[in-house]
Amino acid sequence: MEAQTRTPRGEQTRAAIFAAAMDLFRERGYEATTMRAIADRAGVSLGSSYHYFPSKSHLVLEFYRVCHERHQAASEPVLARERDLGARLRGVIRAVVMTCEPFHDVSASIFSTVADPSSPLNAFSEESRPLRDEVIALYSRVVEGSDARVPPDVAAELPRLLWLYQMGILYFWMLDASPGRLRTLEVVDETSDLIVRLISVSNLPPLRRSRQRLLAMVRTIAESVPYDAG
Amino acid sequence: MEAQTRTPRGEQTRAAIFAAAMDLFRERGYEATTMRAIADRAGVSLGSSYHYFPSKSHLVLEFYRVCHERHQAASEPVLARERDLGARLRGVIRAVVMTCEPFHDVSASIFSTVADPSSPLNAFSEESRPLRDEVIALYSRVVEGSDARVPPDVAAELPRLLWLYQMGILYFWMLDASPGRLRTLEVVDETSDLIVRLISVSNLPPLRRSRQRLLAMVRTIAESVPYDAG
Repeated sequence: MEAQTRTPRGEQTRAAIFAAAMDLFRERGYEATTMRAIADRAGVSLGSSYHYFPSKSHLVLEFYRVCHERHQAASEPVLARERDLGARLRGVIRAVVMTCEPFHDVSASIFSTVADPSSPLNAFSEESRPLRDEVIALYSRVVEGSDARVPPDVAAELPRLLWLYQMGILYFWMLDASPGRLRTLEVVDETSDLIVRLISVSNLPPLRRSRQRLLAMVRTIAESVPYDAG
Repeated sequence: MEAQTRTPRGEQTRAAIFAAAMDLFRERGYEATTMRAIADRAGVSLGSSYHYFPSKSHLVLEFYRVCHERHQAASEPVLARERDLGARLRGVIRAVVMTCEPFHDVSASIFSTVADPSSPLNAFSEESRPLRDEVIALYSRVVEGSDARVPPDVAAELPRLLWLYQMGILYFWMLDASPGRLRTLEVVDETSDLIVRLISVSNLPPLRRSRQRLLAMVRTIAESVPYDAG
């Protein structure tokens, strides 16, 4: 089955089903879209669509994957060129906004699934872990390739915190009603700069203790998330 | 209509419909529950249930309202007794966790609605504004009744930030898989204390500029949220 999926013909069918699903999620919303409607729109049999995507959830995971691959590709030039932590962080977070922009409508329609604690597609779930780990690895590269002096305890937790920061920015972007959503870009500029500033002051004596406690708490919270203990 | 709703008999019917809805949201989930099923469970006609709650959304708003009233009542003794900002904040945030605890299952089932940017029940929407303003007003009292010296620019934005903090804690509580969800109480202790500590250091020279920028950004973000411009 896997071999068939990967032939050029298979790839074409797979892409057609994916495109049909995105259209329907946008038009009718995620909940109201059935696998049958997706197959009809793509011009394939229901059996064939189940072969490529055993459920609607698989289509959402594919959506995450497509977005992440675009995000990663758009981040590479910035990561290759910049050494300044602020420039690297701003570039990578701008990249996620710009690559998600064509999917703004779809994002809103599947968002309830992303946030729902009982959904396997939840951003913290076991099913979304491989992708989550890849995003966190991207933020590790943001930190490690920079010339900033980041205290080791901060460096250890920072990639996960930046992943959370990315989710916060994407949530703001979904709600952003400004023309062209330029507000989101302004908020990215300002928050990325503030984060770098806070990292640099976090080593000052009056903040060192708070920093340690904050990091300990981040670890505690990460361990408490149901599927993330393994 | 309003008069009829407020008779003792009307209140009883209303409460029965509300209780039936909570049961069904818990058992079947929010999306899968119909107004007809709610009416049947409550033992009233469909027309009668529409009279009290014109839609499922109205039942969710009633749920928010019931939770908020319990939260407010549980907060009063702490607000009357404590002057220390940390004690006031910890008490009020513990109160929201404890009063929501009996509704943990229901919360998870309606959560997607609360978070969905396209839903009128979204925490940032115009429809949920009256209640949001009441919660923010509760946090104004937390700050104003304390003996902490909070810089005026911080005091102006703090209630809204504490409302966001409450939402973050409730999200953690929904995901919390620890026995008895005691982790949530630990996270409340630690975060409320850290917030008070950060407020007290935010006036130090190396942080003053970051504080001003952070507050300016909070105002920008609040103005960008679609329904919140009025």
